[in-house]
Amino acid sequence: MGAVKTKRMPRAVREQQMLDAAVRIFGRRGYRAASMDEIAELAGVSKPLVYLYLNSKDDLFSACIRREAAALTAAVRAGARLGLPADRQLWEGLRAFFTHTARHPDGWAVLHLQARTHGEPFAAETAAMRTEIVTFVQQLIAEAARAAACAGEAEGGPGRLPEHEAAGLAEALVGAAESLAAWANTTPGVTARQAATTLMNFAWAGLGNLMEGRPWTPPAPGA
Amino acid sequence: MGAVKTKRMPRAVREQQMLDAAVRIFGRRGYRAASMDEIAELAGVSKPLVYLYLNSKDDLFSACIRREAAALTAAVRAGARLGLPADRQLWEGLRAFFTHTARHPDGWAVLHLQARTHGEPFAAETAAMRTEIVTFVQQLIAEAARAAACAGEAEGGPGRLPEHEAAGLAEALVGAAESLAAWANTTPGVTARQAATTLMNFAWAGLGNLMEGRPWTPPAPGA
Repeated sequence: MGAVKTKRMPRAVREQQMLDAAVRIFGRRGYRAASMDEIAELAGVSKPLVYLYLNSKDDLFSACIRREAAALTAAVRAGARLGLPADRQLWEGLRAFFTHTARHPDGWAVLHLQARTHGEPFAAETAAMRTEIVTFVQQLIAEAARAAACAGEAEGGPGRLPEHEAAGLAEALVGAAESLAAWANTTPGVTARQAATTLMNFAWAGLGNLMEGRPWTPPAPGA
Repeated sequence: MGAVKTKRMPRAVREQQMLDAAVRIFGRRGYRAASMDEIAELAGVSKPLVYLYLNSKDDLFSACIRREAAALTAAVRAGARLGLPADRQLWEGLRAFFTHTARHPDGWAVLHLQARTHGEPFAAETAAMRTEIVTFVQQLIAEAARAAACAGEAEGGPGRLPEHEAAGLAEALVGAAESLAAWANTTPGVTARQAATTLMNFAWAGLGNLMEGRPWTPPAPGA
């Protein structure tokens, strides 16, 4: 720990600084092109210290994925508060997602572009996070469908959405959100709110309704 | 060309065999883990011949991406025939997409999982294909919106879908399709037709309508 003592900074703080630098470099250069020298320099530490704390480039990348995945998942869960009507819950969850990915573009690039390469040691980390988000969305869709079915049954309406169908819809919704986040982050003038509104139009009102001029209408800003 | 003469097979045929083998190995192992030895063995040729024809592992991978991207794009364009009503056009395009990705799972894995890693030499190949498909979908959406607006104007209905909105919806639709194709290829019992139907429900009828029991209904099989 001799190298650390000189600046009297707790290890946890130093590690977060290294991860901040690593996410920036991995997100912008890609895994292969990212250099440990550049990461160490940006973090303001020596390269041996990075290896001492994070062990290897692979382990450093895995640590970045874990941290960014946990932050994104927490943001979405916090956004999609329970107890709201289904469309508001989806809207709030999407806003939280697009706000987070807009604020952390390098973290999003690490998760979306860099980490999914199949067969790499860290692909499992991203797959686990994605599965968690898809399962969460699937539960929201299934709950909303149950609530709609209960309301419908009182009026002699339709039955429940099959579980299998909710799984496919959750995959579609998450895929659409991933694609839109990457687009929003690389298209000047597209805000998180606009991306969330586009996806609500797409997912909730449906393209068919939208083209007939019946879009889903977001609540007023700040509501 | 001495090594080729022995079996009297045209170079173009040999190259396709090498690409077939490479797509299989890259799709299943990932770029890094794929070995040129294994690719040569599966293609039934010597490793030096693979290098003679395709130059390097990077170039071989780029050639795989170009071939698979061209085949997928052609399949989608052929499926989404002009002159159909908008919902039928979308349905036929989606069916063509999911049928192609189901028949060529290794090719799809190369395009979707292996090739998008940002900063790698071949990322530009996939990005170009994806841009082409998104632009095509955006045109379909914009045309359908124009047709709906014209019909609506006759009845004093709504105006056109803004171009910017069509761009976002195309990104959402393509992202949803990518996600569902990966899901369908790894989930036993999910057919191309089911994946296309799920996405039509999601994209056309909208989740809101779906939960009220008003799904978009696909035409009868074979129709």
